[in-house]
Amino acid sequence: MPGNSFGTIFRITTWGESHGPGVGVVVDGCPPGIPLSENIIQKMLDRRRPGASLASTSRKEPDRAVIMSGLFEGLTTGTPLLIMVKNQDAHSKAYAPYAQLFRPGHGDITYQAKYGIRDWRGGGRSSARETVARVASGAVAGALLKTVNINVSAYTIELGGVKAEKRDLDIVAENMFLCPDSEAAIKMQNRVKQVKKDGDSLGGIVEIIARGVPAGLGEPVFDKLDADLAKGLMSIGAVKGVEIGSGFEAAGKTGSENNDPILPDGFDTNNAGGILAGISNGDDIIIRVAVKPIPSISLEQRTIDIEKKINTISIKGRHDISAIPRINVVCESMVYLVLADHYLRQKANLHNGG
Amino acid sequence: MPGNSFGTIFRITTWGESHGPGVGVVVDGCPPGIPLSENIIQKMLDRRRPGASLASTSRKEPDRAVIMSGLFEGLTTGTPLLIMVKNQDAHSKAYAPYAQLFRPGHGDITYQAKYGIRDWRGGGRSSARETVARVASGAVAGALLKTVNINVSAYTIELGGVKAEKRDLDIVAENMFLCPDSEAAIKMQNRVKQVKKDGDSLGGIVEIIARGVPAGLGEPVFDKLDADLAKGLMSIGAVKGVEIGSGFEAAGKTGSENNDPILPDGFDTNNAGGILAGISNGDDIIIRVAVKPIPSISLEQRTIDIEKKINTISIKGRHDISAIPRINVVCESMVYLVLADHYLRQKANLHNGG
Amino acid sequence: MPGNSFGTIFRITTWGESHGPGVGVVVDGCPPGIPLSENIIQKMLDRRRPGASLASTSRKEPDRAVIMSGLFEGLTTGTPLLIMVKNQDAHSKAYAPYAQLFRPGHGDITYQAKYGIRDWRGGGRSSARETVARVASGAVAGALLKTVNINVSAYTIELGGVKAEKRDLDIVAENMFLCPDSEAAIKMQNRVKQVKKDGDSLGGIVEIIARGVPAGLGEPVFDKLDADLAKGLMSIGAVKGVEIGSGFEAAGKTGSENNDPILPDGFDTNNAGGILAGISNGDDIIIRVAVKPIPSISLEQRTIDIEKKINTISIKGRHDISAIPRINVVCESMVYLVLADHYLRQKANLHNGG
Amino acid sequence: MPGNSFGTIFRITTWGESHGPGVGVVVDGCPPGIPLSENIIQKMLDRRRPGASLASTSRKEPDRAVIMSGLFEGLTTGTPLLIMVKNQDAHSKAYAPYAQLFRPGHGDITYQAKYGIRDWRGGGRSSARETVARVASGAVAGALLKTVNINVSAYTIELGGVKAEKRDLDIVAENMFLCPDSEAAIKMQNRVKQVKKDGDSLGGIVEIIARGVPAGLGEPVFDKLDADLAKGLMSIGAVKGVEIGSGFEAAGKTGSENNDPILPDGFDTNNAGGILAGISNGDDIIIRVAVKPIPSISLEQRTIDIEKKINTISIKGRHDISAIPRINVVCESMVYLVLADHYLRQKANLHNGG
Repeated sequence: MPGNSFGTIFRITTWGESHGPGVGVVVDGCPPGIPLSENIIQKMLDRRRPGASLASTSRKEPDRAVIMSGLFEGLTTGTPLLIMVKNQDAHSKAYAPYAQLFRPGHGDITYQAKYGIRDWRGGGRSSARETVARVASGAVAGALLKTVNINVSAYTIELGGVKAEKRDLDIVAENMFLCPDSEAAIKMQNRVKQVKKDGDSLGGIVEIIARGVPAGLGEPVFDKLDADLAKGLMSIGAVKGVEIGSGFEAAGKTGSENNDPILPDGFDTNNAGGILAGISNGDDIIIRVAVKPIPSISLEQRTIDIEKKINTISIKGRHDISAIPRINVVCESMVYLVLADHYLRQKANLHNGG
Repeated sequence: MPGNSFGTIFRITTWGESHGPGVGVVVDGCPPGIPLSENIIQKMLDRRRPGASLASTSRKEPDRAVIMSGLFEGLTTGTPLLIMVKNQDAHSKAYAPYAQLFRPGHGDITYQAKYGIRDWRGGGRSSARETVARVASGAVAGALLKTVNINVSAYTIELGGVKAEKRDLDIVAENMFLCPDSEAAIKMQNRVKQVKKDGDSLGGIVEIIARGVPAGLGEPVFDKLDADLAKGLMSIGAVKGVEIGSGFEAAGKTGSENNDPILPDGFDTNNAGGILAGISNGDDIIIRVAVKPIPSISLEQRTIDIEKKINTISIKGRHDISAIPRINVVCESMVYLVLADHYLRQKANLHNGG
Repeated sequence: MPGNSFGTIFRITTWGESHGPGVGVVVDGCPPGIPLSENIIQKMLDRRRPGASLASTSRKEPDRAVIMSGLFEGLTTGTPLLIMVKNQDAHSKAYAPYAQLFRPGHGDITYQAKYGIRDWRGGGRSSARETVARVASGAVAGALLKTVNINVSAYTIELGGVKAEKRDLDIVAENMFLCPDSEAAIKMQNRVKQVKKDGDSLGGIVEIIARGVPAGLGEPVFDKLDADLAKGLMSIGAVKGVEIGSGFEAAGKTGSENNDPILPDGFDTNNAGGILAGISNGDDIIIRVAVKPIPSISLEQRTIDIEKKINTISIKGRHDISAIPRINVVCESMVYLVLADHYLRQKANLHNGG
Repeated sequence: MPGNSFGTIFRITTWGESHGPGVGVVVDGCPPGIPLSENIIQKMLDRRRPGASLASTSRKEPDRAVIMSGLFEGLTTGTPLLIMVKNQDAHSKAYAPYAQLFRPGHGDITYQAKYGIRDWRGGGRSSARETVARVASGAVAGALLKTVNINVSAYTIELGGVKAEKRDLDIVAENMFLCPDSEAAIKMQNRVKQVKKDGDSLGGIVEIIARGVPAGLGEPVFDKLDADLAKGLMSIGAVKGVEIGSGFEAAGKTGSENNDPILPDGFDTNNAGGILAGISNGDDIIIRVAVKPIPSISLEQRTIDIEKKINTISIKGRHDISAIPRINVVCESMVYLVLADHYLRQKANLHNGG
């Protein structure tokens, strides 16, 4: 079974390489009658665009989304949506100096092991470019879920070792790092400037919150809601860890500290992160993902060439300092996709005829 | 699509509740000709058994595995294996005092939200009892992978806040916590005694290593090897976080610190945890999971009854202090299952006719 | 992806060989709250039992269905049902004379090509014994669909060249061939007696009708309702052809003859067999399947042995003269399974939030 | 699970409506290193094109295939192929007269029941236009299979009641009906002329032969090779019946007539149609499909309007007289797709480590 599809009832299949003609996605299983437009998708794609932030590259990447099927008179029809974005600014020449070298931290060495093919023109299918398709389809999932008041947002709680101490979600959109702590945002900016000068890059942590999720989503025992969220988020290239609720901190707690007392109108605390036994409990869903530093750095690194000879590499060009904050909307999208699928699965589950 | 199956080519489907007649699994897609016996499965199941450890309950649970199909003359036939374990020591009476109460940290409240059914006899399908099926099928996956020298082991690196400082894997089997640091194991024992007296419970961290995995396993872009590992491990009831390689620590590193330099005979470091761009790179695969404290504690907790009235609950009986170390073999099993599936997927991938 | 599962939301996975300890099925995705019992399953299994009919073997085969999970207080719980039937009357000795020979019309030669294994003890996984699992799960699907008044029945319209001229469905249960034409049933009996004396066997045609199916079931463009029915029915061992509505007769008609005129309260004719563009149209669904003669005959046939030497074979023992009428309830079961799946799929499809 | 995907390891997902911007397909799971080009796909698409035949419409439909991903330097890369064909000649105005009427034999009435949407602009997703995606992906499957010498061809053995008495496959391409009997082809031409004058349409039977298929393809018990072929072919809009080998004729035969004697170098006859117990036996695979007459006819038919009032309809315009022979290459494509999938599945099946 090939690996370019995600979801079961609300199911996407993505395609495209960074240096081919374009990238895109088929969204299959979106119910009919959902209000949708290229504009709704474009807005979400624009949030993935580089430029606003010091942490991001200045590559111009307009990314116009085109819907080729599945929409009629402003509503989904129930048939597959094909959303396509053409590649415009793909200078494969920029990669020519590295054509003979494996890039540390990149997928070129494992793709060659897997497929027996050396495509030196940038990341190909392993490029972050493929996340365009995630965001475009995440926008569709979001459009579906907004009809039932489910909303997802992602924000930066750590960058380059600088941690947000506050969760002031109202100010997230006001700083270039999408950080809910304005003081931390300033420190992040300084940290980024420093590292940029060094020719190095930074990792961080993104937190995602889903609000309005009704209790009952998630399927025992393998397709638990947290299991599918973990898969969806870990499948993003730069992500190396996923935790729900108290997550790794739970490891150091006792049961009496970690259990959430149950009150008549909900839970007293939310160590569970909104998910109990793999099923949503009606509380906010809280997830954190660890984002590794961008592997493309201008600092010299040890590597080998394609004939296995020792060499060094220093990657020049317009690379981001961190996948954050552009990755944040990708995280949101994956959470929307998981929730849309489980929302529809639960509809099939509930049979009123019995 | 129901949620009780896992894997695509090597695919399991599990069934059974803690207080029904038994639990089991269908393993579909195991190639023919693999040496297998009830004894191989039993050995792995025995490692899941309580009793040896202070951290675990003293419930007697023999768990005899029976193979009902798919085996002929000591070899798999290529047709589905049904492995079944009868439930023997299921005192649902023990749960009667809690029949009217929701148990904090447990799935009874979310199962009721999902299915509209109140089954007060223990965890039902959400009980850790379902992991018998994971381990039985993990043993089959292990039998397949051992024919190509892939081995997985799980060990405890943190329990109740006590961290292992060493990774002496040779001594793991020698202490009751499966800890690779004998001094830490002693501290863990003291911590467990203390907490047992308190009527509380403990969480911890399990690390899993997979050796002998060839480069090239994992499918872009959603069925990445790390994405499927994250899903498989997060689907275990007590797990609240999963990280690969440097994981959440990567968030605080720079690119030059986190990238693994490439040498002619492999990588100089293993921050990647053996997986680059979702595909195995030939190095050891390193994963860590956060295990939450057992929610059943005798300490009094606030909760509500099934009519939403405020109440308290204190859960007596033979509950484990921690899911560790019994969960360790469950983690191993999930990793074997993921690797077996991707091993077979990669075989289909490589076509020699072109 | 292994081949022992069927369905997407209402999904079964079957296991078991004719000469192993038993056969069975996991039913995953049945909604909670459906009234079910071992007795309901048993009644459907009993209709598969040999004995009543001249066309069938006199082998005693009680086939007691046991439900091991997924049922609580007479209702399904929403978790997987495991239904198991032990094999009791499995004389593998009876097959010893043919241990060195391939049996014409049987799967032993193709199973060996596929798996590299020679299991001479009857049909193994290719035996009609596996249909026990189809019928047991078909009974569950039927229990679900009966809550919304969908009913399926199968009857014999041709056996050994004798065709039913009438469709008097009320008398189907009154004759041993399940034939809706009492005069044809008598001719069938004579034909069977004759062929039994000859040591030969017979094929025939089964027609299946599904009533009460609402318009709107079936998914464009590959999972059309007729496509899934064709797959489900063609997957039964003895079936070599499937047609819907006017079927192969449509090939000889003109459009004006074959189109069904549309009236305010439905269609004037039913050449479509209740399915238009792969979606149910609210009319009765009509399907016919071609059943090949039982390949095990006592008449001498040319074959080879396992060393490829020319030989002959004459298969003695208690073999049926025809798969009809025992296969009829298997056909019903497959239709119930397809309809249950598409019934639940359509529920997920219809989203009222938009 | 949505219904626009087909296959498991070699898996396609199609999209597009007859009157939207285009149609296309993602091919996921094609192994790397297969020689492919837009030209290879175009050649197969051209065989689907109308015009050459009296039986077909004169609509000009160039259908230029564009590959957007998955190809590098003339070889597949192992990542998803997106193949797209723009719609050019889509006069939705032509449908305006029928905007208020349901068309007998068409899917508009069932699509409305399913999705609650009335799209009067031609068939939308149920239009034969969607078969462009089947043929484009079938060409890729064919390119894969030709590397191992598997070839599929489809030809017309009945049209408008005229049956081919011969199977002279060498002359198939020489007549406009793709008929292997030149005399029958002439009669077919006369029959078509007559019916065209009447304003009516014709059905027929297509036979498909697959050569070079090794023994061992097909998965017990549901994903039998014949079951998947039946599904794939029945999912084509106009197909109402599928049979393998002796098919419906087997119903009238005895076992001694229908069994294929086994000889040292193969089978003496091929009533099995190359498939035994759902697994290919190394012989030619022979399938026949019943094609219903085109439902769009200029003869007046009874129908209702969208307010359920009685009316009549007479459909003018450039409609084909028969789906044959344009459907033949669609049938070939579906058979290539099924065989490619099972060819790769069998590779995963065979594990040499045991």
